[in-house]
Amino acid sequence: MRTMNLKAKFMDFEAGLPFVVMNILDAKELGVYVNDRVTLSHGKIKKTAYIETTKHLVKTGEIGIRKESVKYGIKKGTLIKVVPSKRPASIEIIRKKLKGHELKKAEIETLVSEINANRLSDIELGVFVSSVYIRKLSQKEILYLTRAMISCGKCLDWGDRIVVDKHSIGGVPGNRVTPIVVAIVAACGVLMPKTSSRAITSPAGTSDTMEVFCDVSFSSKEVKRIVKKTGACIVWGGSLDLAPVDDKLIRIEHPLSIDPEGQVLASVMSKKKSVGSKYVVIDIPYGDGSKEGDIAGAEEIAKKFKWLARQLDMRAECTITRGDQPIGFGVGPVPEAIDIVDVFDGKGPDDLREKSLELAGILLKMTKKGNIKTAKDILDSGKAKAKFYEIVKAQNGVPGKDVRKLLGKHRKRFFASCSGFVVRLDNRAVARTAKLAGAPKDIGSGIILRAKKGDKISKGDLLFEIYAEQKYKLAEAEKYARKNSLFFVGAKNVMVVEMV
Amino acid sequence: MRTMNLKAKFMDFEAGLPFVVMNILDAKELGVYVNDRVTLSHGKIKKTAYIETTKHLVKTGEIGIRKESVKYGIKKGTLIKVVPSKRPASIEIIRKKLKGHELKKAEIETLVSEINANRLSDIELGVFVSSVYIRKLSQKEILYLTRAMISCGKCLDWGDRIVVDKHSIGGVPGNRVTPIVVAIVAACGVLMPKTSSRAITSPAGTSDTMEVFCDVSFSSKEVKRIVKKTGACIVWGGSLDLAPVDDKLIRIEHPLSIDPEGQVLASVMSKKKSVGSKYVVIDIPYGDGSKEGDIAGAEEIAKKFKWLARQLDMRAECTITRGDQPIGFGVGPVPEAIDIVDVFDGKGPDDLREKSLELAGILLKMTKKGNIKTAKDILDSGKAKAKFYEIVKAQNGVPGKDVRKLLGKHRKRFFASCSGFVVRLDNRAVARTAKLAGAPKDIGSGIILRAKKGDKISKGDLLFEIYAEQKYKLAEAEKYARKNSLFFVGAKNVMVVEMV
Repeated sequence: MRTMNLKAKFMDFEAGLPFVVMNILDAKELGVYVNDRVTLSHGKIKKTAYIETTKHLVKTGEIGIRKESVKYGIKKGTLIKVVPSKRPASIEIIRKKLKGHELKKAEIETLVSEINANRLSDIELGVFVSSVYIRKLSQKEILYLTRAMISCGKCLDWGDRIVVDKHSIGGVPGNRVTPIVVAIVAACGVLMPKTSSRAITSPAGTSDTMEVFCDVSFSSKEVKRIVKKTGACIVWGGSLDLAPVDDKLIRIEHPLSIDPEGQVLASVMSKKKSVGSKYVVIDIPYGDGSKEGDIAGAEEIAKKFKWLARQLDMRAECTITRGDQPIGFGVGPVPEAIDIVDVFDGKGPDDLREKSLELAGILLKMTKKGNIKTAKDILDSGKAKAKFYEIVKAQNGVPGKDVRKLLGKHRKRFFASCSGFVVRLDNRAVARTAKLAGAPKDIGSGIILRAKKGDKISKGDLLFEIYAEQKYKLAEAEKYARKNSLFFVGAKNVMVVEMV
Repeated sequence: MRTMNLKAKFMDFEAGLPFVVMNILDAKELGVYVNDRVTLSHGKIKKTAYIETTKHLVKTGEIGIRKESVKYGIKKGTLIKVVPSKRPASIEIIRKKLKGHELKKAEIETLVSEINANRLSDIELGVFVSSVYIRKLSQKEILYLTRAMISCGKCLDWGDRIVVDKHSIGGVPGNRVTPIVVAIVAACGVLMPKTSSRAITSPAGTSDTMEVFCDVSFSSKEVKRIVKKTGACIVWGGSLDLAPVDDKLIRIEHPLSIDPEGQVLASVMSKKKSVGSKYVVIDIPYGDGSKEGDIAGAEEIAKKFKWLARQLDMRAECTITRGDQPIGFGVGPVPEAIDIVDVFDGKGPDDLREKSLELAGILLKMTKKGNIKTAKDILDSGKAKAKFYEIVKAQNGVPGKDVRKLLGKHRKRFFASCSGFVVRLDNRAVARTAKLAGAPKDIGSGIILRAKKGDKISKGDLLFEIYAEQKYKLAEAEKYARKNSLFFVGAKNVMVVEMV
């Protein structure tokens, strides 16, 4: 295999597409072409990147790399070893899955390790994710995938402390129970080092909302310090290198809002295992507009979660919850932060409060520290609020900050065009509108609902408000919301009678 | 929608990933982030690109674009209008196909037009191609796709001249009949403006091989001139803008060697229709190691081709041919060029000669200009050779060039380790070895077979040679060829008795 040693030259690019720049003569000499993959090494660090070629921007003998490479100890002029990448072994493995065959343990390990090393292109990852979506993963494959994802990342170790965790399957906008559950459970003395993702298919992930209050990106060492101090944390998992392949797959799933069931199982449980938790509650919303359309589907996936937890020496309880409308009033980072503050202040949306209490109650019961009543007492006593702001402070935030002030400057209100009952609230249309308004990137953007399912309303009543940081995004969200009904108002309140 | 007008600054990059560079302050102002899509416009030209951001490399008010943009009349300082791209409508359409639903005419048209405008990312295209592979396309979808692909590109018009064409379904290495068929048919006075692809899954496409003799990239105007002069051409279709979406999809299919049947049909027939042909012969190789494993599969796809041709007001004949071993001796651009020269010189591999005569004969029969006997006479008389070099000359090549001299400097020979008959020759292993040796990018790399199926051989006989331009590629090809048998030698020549 041909090798070249080239001097690092920093290129002033922010982290975007993974490419390096070589002089066209060097590229020819090395036998690589534009868009070919090369492996770069410096000491023990190995990375894969795509080749861009240039005639002048980088001289022969040099290689243009990003400034962020300084984190690997690379300076201007450091010699980088460049080798044309071999065809990744995963290509045949992905083809096998595409054709509908079950993958073996070793194949899944190879695939995960090559994904981790950035050896696969977006095309290849797109094909893998869609193959998994359509062909599905067997239980065995899910277990192998979970274990492989755990073993290629770091794991947090809490000694013999009892560690709990929770996860909500996505799909329901505004489902921001985590900060409340964590505060209640931690206030009861149970360790809850909670890592969360950023938005995958929703207008905000727990990390996006939490970032309204405080920092969420920490190193493992910092997380240890925060948890030691407060008994909990609410941080973004991405910077901890726990099951890092999961994040790489989420990036691929994001643009098309695909998340195949098998991968969701592996994704959730690999993170929970890596973070060191033993007891986990999984919230599975079901119903019109949530990920599981019916109870049967929700029960099915609940069984798989419990099975997978046992294989990993953990215990999981699953709650099947109503997911046929947004939880709380706010959708988007700041709107959801407002709901959280209100729940801690004893006001807040009822559904958000009740759901948080139920989930906290289950975790307290699993760890023999109490039940839902304990959770209620802790919340109503103000101890949960105090714990929440203790965590916020430990994560460099300012306790008690007025998050309402952070709402986007641009607002559009929508009013009922007739009287009746709210018979349906479309999760997807709500989420889409909030995303068009700029959520989650623009934190002050999103929706505040002013009515929920079952509410009796009169013509002219305020139904919801769209907030946006950018005027043109408000216009796009408004246009969408006018074309696609978020609310359905009926003469009779038929839908209030639910099957649960 | 927010807009920004930025001054063009040329960045010295060769054409690679489709990105432009903006100053980070401008990006923030526009409300876009690294990797977001923007639409760039200059007059009527509209292109989509990904954002890279920088602090210094590009100043505020500037946008870094590739030098190739000069072809759109852009100079240094030309104002480029930059608008954040809306979410492509195709995302929902791709999701629909992923979920297994049939797409409507209008949806396929939207999809094709957005692919054409480069509005979809590699992830999205990867998901689309795998969805089509697994879910398959209905006949209706294939027709809509074909028509949409034709209408978003250019079409060549030959007035009322009878225009013929041919296509071989890929998968069989060394199947380089096109230059011979074109030369014979054109020598009989039938117009054959042949466009070909570069390698998709094989070590060489017709264009790669033809490029050994002459140029293959021409504008439509130049193609018209060549065809007017010689009655034919053998050019790369990619620079003619005929059904350009096909090429964009092929780029996605390439890394994983996927080509879903429905897309193959649309791909082939959209090109044939766009190039202005009325009569087409489709060569469908079948058998162990070719795309169609058995005769039934080959007959099935033949029927679909004939149906699709009728819908497009064309006539197609399909030949089902043996594809259970490479055609000819050479695999790779130069090795295949050597075979072509040998056939014109009356030597050449028998199978390549016979197959070319059969295909040419069918086209002559369809156009009532003769039959296989006519084809044989034309080839043996030297008229086909003269026509071939007339075309080569018109395409800026040197007639009669000694292509043998272009073989890679590095060679490895493989000898039989026992005596017997060649009972099997593995297409895939042959192709893979040739590709590892550097084909098609390194034109002199590839394989020359010294025995074919049914040949009686003695221990120590030369079986095949690997040629490579780069020593390390030869080593990789050799390593692969040692581990994976290309030849199977048996005591009895059982496999000579074929089903056809």
